[in-house]
Amino acid sequence: MGKLLIVGTVAFDEIETPFGKTGKILGGAATFIGLAASQFDVDSAIISIVGEDMEQEYLDLLANKGIDLSGLEIVKGGKTFYWKGKYHNDLNSRDTLVTELNTLADFNPVVPDHFKDADVVMLGNLHPSTQMSVIDQMEKRPKLIILDTMNFWMDNALPELKDVIKYIDVITINDEEARQLTNEYSLVKAAEKIQDMGPKFVVIKKGEHGALLFHEEKVFFAPALPLEEVFDPTGAGDTFAGGFAGYIAATGNTSFNSLKNGVIHGSNLASFSVERFGTERMQDLERDEVNKRLHQFKTLTQFDIELK
Amino acid sequence: MGKLLIVGTVAFDEIETPFGKTGKILGGAATFIGLAASQFDVDSAIISIVGEDMEQEYLDLLANKGIDLSGLEIVKGGKTFYWKGKYHNDLNSRDTLVTELNTLADFNPVVPDHFKDADVVMLGNLHPSTQMSVIDQMEKRPKLIILDTMNFWMDNALPELKDVIKYIDVITINDEEARQLTNEYSLVKAAEKIQDMGPKFVVIKKGEHGALLFHEEKVFFAPALPLEEVFDPTGAGDTFAGGFAGYIAATGNTSFNSLKNGVIHGSNLASFSVERFGTERMQDLERDEVNKRLHQFKTLTQFDIELK
Repeated sequence: MGKLLIVGTVAFDEIETPFGKTGKILGGAATFIGLAASQFDVDSAIISIVGEDMEQEYLDLLANKGIDLSGLEIVKGGKTFYWKGKYHNDLNSRDTLVTELNTLADFNPVVPDHFKDADVVMLGNLHPSTQMSVIDQMEKRPKLIILDTMNFWMDNALPELKDVIKYIDVITINDEEARQLTNEYSLVKAAEKIQDMGPKFVVIKKGEHGALLFHEEKVFFAPALPLEEVFDPTGAGDTFAGGFAGYIAATGNTSFNSLKNGVIHGSNLASFSVERFGTERMQDLERDEVNKRLHQFKTLTQFDIELK
Repeated sequence: MGKLLIVGTVAFDEIETPFGKTGKILGGAATFIGLAASQFDVDSAIISIVGEDMEQEYLDLLANKGIDLSGLEIVKGGKTFYWKGKYHNDLNSRDTLVTELNTLADFNPVVPDHFKDADVVMLGNLHPSTQMSVIDQMEKRPKLIILDTMNFWMDNALPELKDVIKYIDVITINDEEARQLTNEYSLVKAAEKIQDMGPKFVVIKKGEHGALLFHEEKVFFAPALPLEEVFDPTGAGDTFAGGFAGYIAATGNTSFNSLKNGVIHGSNLASFSVERFGTERMQDLERDEVNKRLHQFKTLTQFDIELK
């Protein structure tokens, strides 16, 4: 059982889709990552910050999944990071209606002593300097450091982002962001350029179109499972990352073949996440359901052409 | 060696992409389908119509691939169907600058006697009534009738389209067209509805995002190979269809497993087609190159997770 250290937001989300709207519900990158990773035999911890308004039942939910919360700071009198968004009809794009940083504005992650030797570090989408400060606190080089980021940091903290990605092993990024970071339209060329910046592995997320894993000259593709209904895409990317990181931490294997399996597991878990609002589907997800859907993934992509 | 009957345009294309522009070059659905199908051991024929301006070297090119042209009508004094288009920077969308139907306006396909017993019929994108007239001329029910169509016919000949698709086995259509035909956003639901209209198999083409094959409750996904450079997408869909149809005709096997292999072969050939303008890359494509890239397709998607 490997140790997985997760850094990211634990937040309130308020979501509107064509299918309905929520009140303030549990959200945040670290939340989705942690829930997905809990599908594997890992010893995981979340480092984050919330306000006093964070509901105890949400924290209990994470703790009951075996997630160590000793690195989760609760700020007295503070308010939790809050995001409100509305999805367009095709669910492929959304408008952010409200972003309140609240306590997140003063987030200085402190790695608990017993996780300074984590095997895998999953850096959720945060300011690159915040991500860097976590790497600096590790006592030994983790087997794998995975970093997620977004276009906001490319626009507002590019030098810091370029600095931190020198030190990581895997970057997860969406297709438009990969293009923005490299000025290359071809994802093959973009992934090459990103590897030159540091990460040995580049995962390019294409939402409903799946994900690509690049390493040296090799490329692997994990489709998204075609679904009858996508209900709420919020957290799908983080669920993907959590499944990926959780699988690697559980196996301790950082080979390309293992990372291939990781992206399949990540895609598999993300296909559940989008079936309900927020974390609802992930809260009680059974391993039997997960294994059953893995079979669908295999059927979806495996073929038997005799090669000459 | 099965018989493959191909119906569609043989045309002049004039193409502009961010990488350059062509003069009038060989194009047309039947051309791309025929060139792709010629990668397999098939006895194929093209039914089409051109004007006297069609260059002999282009017809020789097709004939030299072993394609029977006895059903290709050359109209004395007539002009060949001509399309001119310009691709946008991302190559995912294009503007049609000129469409001249010319001789195509009077196209009444006549199936040569020796192809009235074809094993596979590939109906390229044409007016649905024209497609229907070919089916009516067959002496025995082909093993597989494949039909390609587009949104233009949904807008302008929907009753005729709905009529012809009752009689076919496989429809190939792009994602937006599948949604338009069914009013369903989910491609899973759209494919269900289309199967209810007649075709037992539904192939949904997603361009650079690959293709889905639906049959009953089953679904298979063939990715598009991630390429360093896409030069000209013209004909990619027809090349895909030609590879698919050619493989089925060569094997004579119309099982779901065989059709899965067909979409992989189609995707594989399409990945070559887009590397040069028009048919250039397909004209001298060697089977060795094709087989080599099939290996890449296998590496791209095959994984080894032990399922429980």
